[in-house]
Amino acid sequence: MSLYSEIMEQPHILSALLSNQSGVVKKIAEEINRNKPAYVFLAARGTSGNAGRYASYLWGSMNKLPVAIATPSLFTCYHKPPLLKDALVVGISQSGQSPDIVSVLEEGRKQGCRTLTITNAPTSPLAAAADWVIDIQAGEEKAVAATKTYTGELMAIAMLAIAMQADSSLHDTLNQTPYWMEQALGLDAAIEKIAERYRYMEHCVVIGRGYNYATAFEWSLKMKELCYVVAEPYSSADFLHGPIAMIESGFPVMGILHKGAVYPDMIKTFRKMREVHNAEILTISDEKEALELAHSPMQLPAGIPEWVSPLVAILPGQLFTYHLTRVKGLNSESPRHIFKVTETH
Amino acid sequence: MSLYSEIMEQPHILSALLSNQSGVVKKIAEEINRNKPAYVFLAARGTSGNAGRYASYLWGSMNKLPVAIATPSLFTCYHKPPLLKDALVVGISQSGQSPDIVSVLEEGRKQGCRTLTITNAPTSPLAAAADWVIDIQAGEEKAVAATKTYTGELMAIAMLAIAMQADSSLHDTLNQTPYWMEQALGLDAAIEKIAERYRYMEHCVVIGRGYNYATAFEWSLKMKELCYVVAEPYSSADFLHGPIAMIESGFPVMGILHKGAVYPDMIKTFRKMREVHNAEILTISDEKEALELAHSPMQLPAGIPEWVSPLVAILPGQLFTYHLTRVKGLNSESPRHIFKVTETH
Repeated sequence: MSLYSEIMEQPHILSALLSNQSGVVKKIAEEINRNKPAYVFLAARGTSGNAGRYASYLWGSMNKLPVAIATPSLFTCYHKPPLLKDALVVGISQSGQSPDIVSVLEEGRKQGCRTLTITNAPTSPLAAAADWVIDIQAGEEKAVAATKTYTGELMAIAMLAIAMQADSSLHDTLNQTPYWMEQALGLDAAIEKIAERYRYMEHCVVIGRGYNYATAFEWSLKMKELCYVVAEPYSSADFLHGPIAMIESGFPVMGILHKGAVYPDMIKTFRKMREVHNAEILTISDEKEALELAHSPMQLPAGIPEWVSPLVAILPGQLFTYHLTRVKGLNSESPRHIFKVTETH
Repeated sequence: MSLYSEIMEQPHILSALLSNQSGVVKKIAEEINRNKPAYVFLAARGTSGNAGRYASYLWGSMNKLPVAIATPSLFTCYHKPPLLKDALVVGISQSGQSPDIVSVLEEGRKQGCRTLTITNAPTSPLAAAADWVIDIQAGEEKAVAATKTYTGELMAIAMLAIAMQADSSLHDTLNQTPYWMEQALGLDAAIEKIAERYRYMEHCVVIGRGYNYATAFEWSLKMKELCYVVAEPYSSADFLHGPIAMIESGFPVMGILHKGAVYPDMIKTFRKMREVHNAEILTISDEKEALELAHSPMQLPAGIPEWVSPLVAILPGQLFTYHLTRVKGLNSESPRHIFKVTETH
């Protein structure tokens, strides 16, 4: 089972990435800092698009860089790309193959912008289109659903954030992360039991905010790809602006409620979901209250700073999805209709 | 029924908006052009967030302005706003009340950025936080689900795009739009019949790309708010990067397939949905092929340029949602759990 072993090998791969690529990332950070961009223009899709969501919060908060998510059709279908003055253009892709993402970087370069690719394929067209490449070195990913390349991309994003602000104390936190990931993977047996209950779940919502907005999107994407569940991701704020109307008694509401700045907002929403709307609650959390509130709690190790928590918090989500796929009698290696490399224009 | 009458009065309201506000918009455009921003930093949620999606395509293609969608939690929860150097900061909100959106504009002003609010409430806190205000003048919107304020916001966005590039021939196209909207509203009786078939629909996907990416998001939001259907919006490209795995025989796939630059990509996806995956197809289109492909076709008037089509293409989606709400025996005026003004932090 490639999917399962790829989930399990993540702490090891991220340790190696930290050791092997810190020098490269440091040099890239120095060059970026030499002439600070006004903002980042970021192109990515699918799982890599979710990694991009993490970048927009982390680079925004830690490096004060606004991040604009690219609209590739302006480049490929309309042939009317915007003027990317003073932007750092970033592409993220496991395979580095998708022509629309490559187009955004090529246009950025043509306009004189500096360009960066984060990829697992350092000889890919996307890598060739960039001034700088961070190779996440995750090894071949055999399962169609991405897991280790997702956390590899998150790690590369975090390494760059820290290198750009040259704070070595934060580097210690990153070095600690594979250890926290090992602990989170220890939930495997407990999550296998939890998954059983959702054998007939057909749809759900997944809520996260701030740094873990990315986790909500990635967890829901895994459930769509592998379990064919219509899983809709939201920030807790966007959820209140309309979609909350869908919630009826028993509707499954999943959430990442990590200790930190957005926790008060998240727990308020989840209390309401449970107490007022009688929703079915699943939580990934390091807070007692958020775990006790849930029908299905998944407890994260204590002491993880919020900014690095997405690297750990997705693991219970990946394990949950893997086990639910098996409980539903589906194929965890080759989901229907999708392939490892998706080429969109 | 406020919802129904508010849907029906849209052509009239948009005509008035064009007549009354063109002067104001022209002046704002001149001031923006005097010192062109590097990019737009745009804050909005819910329906107004979907209008913001239209802005990112239209201002990107017509005015070459990249648009970054704000991450308000960086401002309100983390208190770590990014540096908004050379950005035009834009807030869009029907009520102008949501504190998180107001915070983004206040921070933009504090950093010395120019700020613009598009709202139906010109005396609201969001209007007070901006240098310039476009009042969409839609009149009070009584139904909780927004319709006329959505198309009003789209019109304001389009008026500004045209004014910034000072092309009066495009203004003629805008003047024509209320007439096309009237024609689209003539589908009412046909759509009432179509809605019946979806009485027991619990989930669906809604696909649009480019300019009509916004339409896919807005149609799906209406179905979530009013019909409690788990409706997931996608671009046709993002859809192929994973979520397509959900599609099984009979799965409802809705789409906006307007003639234009993204049509070849859209029709390819929909052909595959119908012919390979045996999905249930609903299309809003002005193309014979896309209408014939559908179980439930909704035909738009011919001759609408793609860039202005989102103002017309949402109308069949609104009517479909209204009638489905009634077919399902639900309350079209006051959906459960939501209110006219949502205040998020």
